[in-house]
Amino acid sequence: MSTETGAQDWRWLSDALGDDAVALDEHSLAQHGKDEGFARQGRKFLPEVVAFPQTTDEVVTVVREAARRGLRVTAWGAGTSMEGNGLPTRGGIVLDMSRMNRIVSVHPEDLQVVVEPGILRPDLNEQVARHGLFFPPDPGAPATIGGMVSNNASGTKSAKYGVTRDYVLGLEVVLADGIVIRTGSRAIKSASGYNLTGLFVGAEGTLGVITRITMRLAPLPAVVHGALGRFSSLDHAAKAVAGMIGAGVTPAMSELLDEQVIRVLNAEQETGWPERATLLLEFDGSSTAAVEDELELARAVIADVDPGAEFVTSSPDEHRRVTALRHGLGPTIFRSSSKPHIKVLDSTVPISRYVDLVRATRTILGAHGLEGFQLGHAGDGNLHVLILADAKDPEEWARVELAEDDIVEKALEFEGTTTGEHGVGLGRKRFMEAEHGRATDVMRAIKLALDPEQLLNPDKIVDIEL
Amino acid sequence: MSTETGAQDWRWLSDALGDDAVALDEHSLAQHGKDEGFARQGRKFLPEVVAFPQTTDEVVTVVREAARRGLRVTAWGAGTSMEGNGLPTRGGIVLDMSRMNRIVSVHPEDLQVVVEPGILRPDLNEQVARHGLFFPPDPGAPATIGGMVSNNASGTKSAKYGVTRDYVLGLEVVLADGIVIRTGSRAIKSASGYNLTGLFVGAEGTLGVITRITMRLAPLPAVVHGALGRFSSLDHAAKAVAGMIGAGVTPAMSELLDEQVIRVLNAEQETGWPERATLLLEFDGSSTAAVEDELELARAVIADVDPGAEFVTSSPDEHRRVTALRHGLGPTIFRSSSKPHIKVLDSTVPISRYVDLVRATRTILGAHGLEGFQLGHAGDGNLHVLILADAKDPEEWARVELAEDDIVEKALEFEGTTTGEHGVGLGRKRFMEAEHGRATDVMRAIKLALDPEQLLNPDKIVDIEL
Repeated sequence: MSTETGAQDWRWLSDALGDDAVALDEHSLAQHGKDEGFARQGRKFLPEVVAFPQTTDEVVTVVREAARRGLRVTAWGAGTSMEGNGLPTRGGIVLDMSRMNRIVSVHPEDLQVVVEPGILRPDLNEQVARHGLFFPPDPGAPATIGGMVSNNASGTKSAKYGVTRDYVLGLEVVLADGIVIRTGSRAIKSASGYNLTGLFVGAEGTLGVITRITMRLAPLPAVVHGALGRFSSLDHAAKAVAGMIGAGVTPAMSELLDEQVIRVLNAEQETGWPERATLLLEFDGSSTAAVEDELELARAVIADVDPGAEFVTSSPDEHRRVTALRHGLGPTIFRSSSKPHIKVLDSTVPISRYVDLVRATRTILGAHGLEGFQLGHAGDGNLHVLILADAKDPEEWARVELAEDDIVEKALEFEGTTTGEHGVGLGRKRFMEAEHGRATDVMRAIKLALDPEQLLNPDKIVDIEL
Repeated sequence: MSTETGAQDWRWLSDALGDDAVALDEHSLAQHGKDEGFARQGRKFLPEVVAFPQTTDEVVTVVREAARRGLRVTAWGAGTSMEGNGLPTRGGIVLDMSRMNRIVSVHPEDLQVVVEPGILRPDLNEQVARHGLFFPPDPGAPATIGGMVSNNASGTKSAKYGVTRDYVLGLEVVLADGIVIRTGSRAIKSASGYNLTGLFVGAEGTLGVITRITMRLAPLPAVVHGALGRFSSLDHAAKAVAGMIGAGVTPAMSELLDEQVIRVLNAEQETGWPERATLLLEFDGSSTAAVEDELELARAVIADVDPGAEFVTSSPDEHRRVTALRHGLGPTIFRSSSKPHIKVLDSTVPISRYVDLVRATRTILGAHGLEGFQLGHAGDGNLHVLILADAKDPEEWARVELAEDDIVEKALEFEGTTTGEHGVGLGRKRFMEAEHGRATDVMRAIKLALDPEQLLNPDKIVDIEL
């Protein structure tokens, strides 16, 4: 293997990590230059080299030496992010964490696990299931836990089970100067100093490289019931979810699909569902009585909110199939369209404004003449808008971005946030001043305090003059 | 009213806030110079002046002018903190937030409320109860919400309901230079930039003065059942709680009392309880079926862990009485003792190590010849150790501090934290390096980035050379 490319000599890197832990070939560079969201917009950024550390010490070595040489270092998970969150905008070194994928220890009696960041979510869940435990946040994608932590990922289960940050008790982090710190502990609560753990979660790798994660888990529910609600309108569906939560019943899953999504599902997957606004629901708990109780309450709320609604429970098999369909929706919609690119929004608003956002989005898509779908995690106010277009058609893509501007503006007007789960990365930086005002200066101050040379995952979250 | 004291002329302050918003009298200064914990150790620090702002603008004026004059500013809630968290160690201005105590808005459909920081927890709960909502963290003390936020307070309900940080969605904060920022939003999840909200929560007022808080609340449970468990030993009681949580049943309250505490209760309150290690339990939920289900599971776990245990449910009246007894325990124990001072520890460990901490604590108290009681929030691994002694007896107080050192050392050895809920303040600073190692440098860097002159609540959490 050659260890030279362009002006850089990477021998120091293979000396430190071993030849087979350094990749310079075109395929590896290309693989680490695009994520799920940006690839579908035809955008990429190539690293100069990909390194595969196996230990914290190796990460320290790379970060120290990179700092000495003024090279950028960007940590990499599974490449499933949506907004260019881990793309090496300025080349440099991509640290692919996939070989640091061990479970360090399991503490079943504490419902806890300590992992390395490269472990994949499905692998973690498979391994802790034997202890009756699971890590609930489920973004659909087979992300790494390190990526989920860095992005504060969430997904279908968050209204009931919370987001990734809620599960992280402690971290080991390699800072920009190569110092290793440990935050938090295995205690489930603490008032001991600044909440560094919560700060590194969601920092998208811009403040340090996470090398170890102490997490709490949840007990696998003993009883899970799926159900489908079909409503007179999207508004009714959204109101039903708010009503359930207000009544003290938070579904483990409450996925909203608009009529257009149902049409695509019927065409692509032969679901044969009525073309109505639909909620995919899941209720879970520690006993049949408790879950049946929740189902009854949900049924009552739905009948009250929308007498024309239909509410049917699913068999376990049906529910599994429905959940898989939901997780495959992005690709299914993408396939169904003649457009080559897709942009996926994830603005999130208080649940009382969800209907308003759904309506405003419909108007905005129409006004810009765009093909769009609405689905989302209704229970937590998270609306996904999938806009299909041709990124190489500047006029059309400009309309996509104008629609995004308008939708985000509405989300902020409704006291919500630009991004509920995809993170800022590169794609949402332009909304940060509008959303956070002068608090962006505090974000800059923190970045500069921890990474003054901006060596770690540059150009993400907020721009800083170098 | 005179507006001059010592070398300082406070006319600018009464010009800005009004005469009745500035206090210089001895009583007011003394009131704002001691908190609940330090007072019981005979320690205090007097401010030079107490100001009572009524608006964010007034806070800005005070902070700006104080910065210009190089005066320290320390925000003040209800004075119920335990570790000197809000004591004006270097004099200056205490900002008493009690007049900023309005509910700004209630959003019942979102289970949210926006409040000013000076509102008291009981007042908030009384006012949102009409919407079927409550703010669960319950430290017992009638703290202000601003104080609870700044301390990341928790208490009896945290194992099931989480800590204060889990309920804070957004903040308005006046920074050390008088800039006002707004963090977060009313969306219940966000991946939009660094988690500033979570950073200001628990920062004990050292990074900014909180002037507005957006909070989520929980639906008041429809059904609440109290119960008492009496065990063969403290170990058995602790194991029973861990067993319930492992089985998917988290009690809303699981307060552990050792035999000595029961003896004091019997003597002081005529409870007439068996002198056994006791758990005060509460189970709640959205339906009778669900709660009875939990009670059954709890009963089964207890019988399994300790065949000699007794488990009895309480009537609502009994449960209210028991809960009040629990919240009054600190003062009750204090009254029962001939010792004039008390130190209350709150180290927290993973639940699997709770029994180890209980045992180690017993040994440590014995070794130092001290009078101590053990109680705590068993569900979240939080152990309170109440040590009674005479702070004016240097030899005896030195033993108290040595015992504290030993207990905290054990908590850290068991992968726990120095303080689960009381915060660092002044009292726990000496443990920060042992607990956090080089992460304390990151805390210092953040403090210096946000408050380089250390104007806000000086000397708390970590020491920084000026």
